[in-house]
Amino acid sequence: MNERRGRSARMMARAERSALASPFVTRRIGIVSLIDEEALWIIERNADRILDEIGMEFRGDPETLEIFRKHGARVDGERVRFDPGWCRDKIRNAPRIFTQHARNAARSVQIGGDAQVFCPSFGPPFVHDIEKGRRYATFEDFKAITKLHYSLAAVNHSGGVVVEPVDLPVPVRHLHMAHAHLTHSDKPFMGAVTAPERARDTIEMCKLAMGTGFVEENCVLYSVVNTNAPLVMDETMLWALKEYAKSGQCTVVSPFVLGGAMSPVSVAATLAQVLAEVMACVSLIQLIRPGAPAVFGTFFSPLSLRTGAPTFGTPEGTQFQMCAKTLADRLGLPFHSVGALTASKVPDAQAGYESQSQLMGAVLAGVNFVIHATGCLEGLLTTGYEKIVMDADRCAALQRFVQGIDFSEAAQAMDAFAEIGPGGHFLGARHTQEHFETAFWLGDMSDNGTYEQWVAEGGMWEHERASQKVRRLLNEYEAPQMDIAVREALNDFVARRTKEITGDKA
Amino acid sequence: MNERRGRSARMMARAERSALASPFVTRRIGIVSLIDEEALWIIERNADRILDEIGMEFRGDPETLEIFRKHGARVDGERVRFDPGWCRDKIRNAPRIFTQHARNAARSVQIGGDAQVFCPSFGPPFVHDIEKGRRYATFEDFKAITKLHYSLAAVNHSGGVVVEPVDLPVPVRHLHMAHAHLTHSDKPFMGAVTAPERARDTIEMCKLAMGTGFVEENCVLYSVVNTNAPLVMDETMLWALKEYAKSGQCTVVSPFVLGGAMSPVSVAATLAQVLAEVMACVSLIQLIRPGAPAVFGTFFSPLSLRTGAPTFGTPEGTQFQMCAKTLADRLGLPFHSVGALTASKVPDAQAGYESQSQLMGAVLAGVNFVIHATGCLEGLLTTGYEKIVMDADRCAALQRFVQGIDFSEAAQAMDAFAEIGPGGHFLGARHTQEHFETAFWLGDMSDNGTYEQWVAEGGMWEHERASQKVRRLLNEYEAPQMDIAVREALNDFVARRTKEITGDKA
Repeated sequence: MNERRGRSARMMARAERSALASPFVTRRIGIVSLIDEEALWIIERNADRILDEIGMEFRGDPETLEIFRKHGARVDGERVRFDPGWCRDKIRNAPRIFTQHARNAARSVQIGGDAQVFCPSFGPPFVHDIEKGRRYATFEDFKAITKLHYSLAAVNHSGGVVVEPVDLPVPVRHLHMAHAHLTHSDKPFMGAVTAPERARDTIEMCKLAMGTGFVEENCVLYSVVNTNAPLVMDETMLWALKEYAKSGQCTVVSPFVLGGAMSPVSVAATLAQVLAEVMACVSLIQLIRPGAPAVFGTFFSPLSLRTGAPTFGTPEGTQFQMCAKTLADRLGLPFHSVGALTASKVPDAQAGYESQSQLMGAVLAGVNFVIHATGCLEGLLTTGYEKIVMDADRCAALQRFVQGIDFSEAAQAMDAFAEIGPGGHFLGARHTQEHFETAFWLGDMSDNGTYEQWVAEGGMWEHERASQKVRRLLNEYEAPQMDIAVREALNDFVARRTKEITGDKA
Repeated sequence: MNERRGRSARMMARAERSALASPFVTRRIGIVSLIDEEALWIIERNADRILDEIGMEFRGDPETLEIFRKHGARVDGERVRFDPGWCRDKIRNAPRIFTQHARNAARSVQIGGDAQVFCPSFGPPFVHDIEKGRRYATFEDFKAITKLHYSLAAVNHSGGVVVEPVDLPVPVRHLHMAHAHLTHSDKPFMGAVTAPERARDTIEMCKLAMGTGFVEENCVLYSVVNTNAPLVMDETMLWALKEYAKSGQCTVVSPFVLGGAMSPVSVAATLAQVLAEVMACVSLIQLIRPGAPAVFGTFFSPLSLRTGAPTFGTPEGTQFQMCAKTLADRLGLPFHSVGALTASKVPDAQAGYESQSQLMGAVLAGVNFVIHATGCLEGLLTTGYEKIVMDADRCAALQRFVQGIDFSEAAQAMDAFAEIGPGGHFLGARHTQEHFETAFWLGDMSDNGTYEQWVAEGGMWEHERASQKVRRLLNEYEAPQMDIAVREALNDFVARRTKEITGDKA
């Protein structure tokens, strides 16, 4: 038994290391698309018509309107209309593929092409675990969740607002969040979008950690701006978009759509609306700084017209995502979309079914940046501690899936058939001995043993095993290395800016 | 609130009726395949080599060996070897598409082509529910599970040994199971494979229910025989195969493979082995009765080489299934494979993640007959009552998914954009009012409401809601109509055969 556990531990350690060896996932299989040439043409024509006939509103920001006017868009008050083809022409300057650099170069990720990057959930004000239940998230939660994601090999990115640290004053939250991402992890992370000075602060902190010259020349932040669907961009999001575009940092334009309320009640119409919004906003990015990295993002949840609530794990959600990926490919933009979403309040079967449905759809679609890949409960109102490690295990399985199948001579194993013959057992075959450690993927969250063994080990449901894993990972956590001078510079920056922002109130 | 509940109930009733309108699912999207022409050629060549150089053993049945010898296969003891191309040539006689008739013609299902049929789990000796836990299954369980599946619109088939009724003596179990399928349901079902006289009994009972002439001319039973991988067929399975083939009933040849033990530890090698076994056995069917319906089946679970246990929801399981579907297409055979499998002992998150992974893989692969689509726990050792209704909800979602996307003018909703404009709400739009009841799929197992509402309603996890639904469906169950004379004939048959089989012991 001890020998078995020893071997098991060695296998796990090896699996962990091998996963860590690659900072992102390179898929070797095709994408699953559900949209043919005729339907693509319909959606693209409809998006063009929406932009031409109805247009989009850019609110509270005269500079944006002036940029559009100067380049030939038709500005009428805050409404901007675009001739067919105008946006596509501007978008041509955006890179198809770029790198988001992490402060540890070995963790830098490719955005676009065959790369897939798995990133934590963004934005929940609550956390949940099975012992303490649901409560408002604090900065302690933010740090613990950042440490967890640093420890999980299947998670390539540290994310942004992994939870809202509601115990920190809003005007300084962004400083502490960026500080936590930079010190408790060395994976790439996201920039603040809630105010232009907060975007600037995040960029400054990256300069302290990675060098001013480097940050000026490279993309080190990945930031998501949401349109106010339908067809509105508000000033807060515009300011963040402009700030990151000016500095050459990446902006994801991700219309947030509850289908049936913020878009018409159909996949086809929502696709046209989202395409229109993304085209208009990415054009703006390219007018501000041609060649600045920009990403086509989507968040689509069909509204339950029975309860008025967003739904997840639905056929339409995955259909939408697969089609939108193809539209992004045709625009020449990397594609960002949602992962393991669920409406469930707890880490139950619903959470498993819905999350796997959403995540598997995203991975098969070839989503380049899978946001909300881990931790979502309650439709992004809550991050679940157990859910993080449960989701990460499923991410790892799908990451193996997209590697495709080995059809090499070794994998064909024709010698094994000759060795074993009809009615034999392959466990002892030479081929099995040589390949068993790496042949099949094995996670560590599923219980595959016998019923009797499961009972003997406490008859735990998956969320109970997950709870144990969370504790173990947090106990074993070791911070990534950081130069002491850099850490002091970051500490000083946060202290100085806190004083400036809060003034006498601090 | 009452009005809302009234509307909700009407919507549910309508959805249920609309689902019932179709006895099987016709997919309108392409299949997801992971195997290219070169890899296909490798696997097919390797299967041919296995059959030519190693061959397959057909044990305990001289008649089978004689059939093979007479038609030119190379018989050496119980080992039979086949020249490359020999099997393919025989298989050409098998139909690509056929109908399995139910005693209610409106429930008959197409096997093959664009059809997908969803069928319950097969074979578990245990049942589980959250109140009483895990215990041996009885005939009462068998009947209750058959009634449940009759009530669930997403389940197209009544299955076979939905659980082993261990309280019935083995020699008469098949009589009572067939009786239950025929009387408690009117969906198509499966034949016994445990002995040739049991196969004959099942056929006789179908004749009583559907008419002798009809059964002699049509496929009314769908029966699964498993090879003893690697490369062995035993006499029990051979007898069942021969019995159904002679009578023109459908036989699925489904190698049961725990990868790494019963096949080499790789997807590529297992594909070749399974293809070889299926080709040899389907050839036999076609030699016995050319044109008899035959199906390419698979059951592949990668063995955990850490614990020695079968695993589910793995990347390799889905990779294997997607490739095997393409191999079946090239042979011109319908494809049968596994659905919502899990190793979990309980209806927890693991059950959700793994089942959704397996089921979604199967549906995307285009599996024509999805066995184990509902109810599996503990790697088919247990059927879970709650799991049945939870899985059925996810089957319904995937059935909607494979309908594809509506790109009609109505779905494009260009008038709605003009009506609502930037910043508006689509809930009140004419397009929404006209389409909201059918626009988005809505299951009834997921909780999508607010946290507060969920707490107010008892804070139930999905398995608790499922438990309520099981009770409701069993309470509301009404048996399908059956002519009183038919019922009496079935009762008499079971009584007579029981007496004959058990003799003085009865």
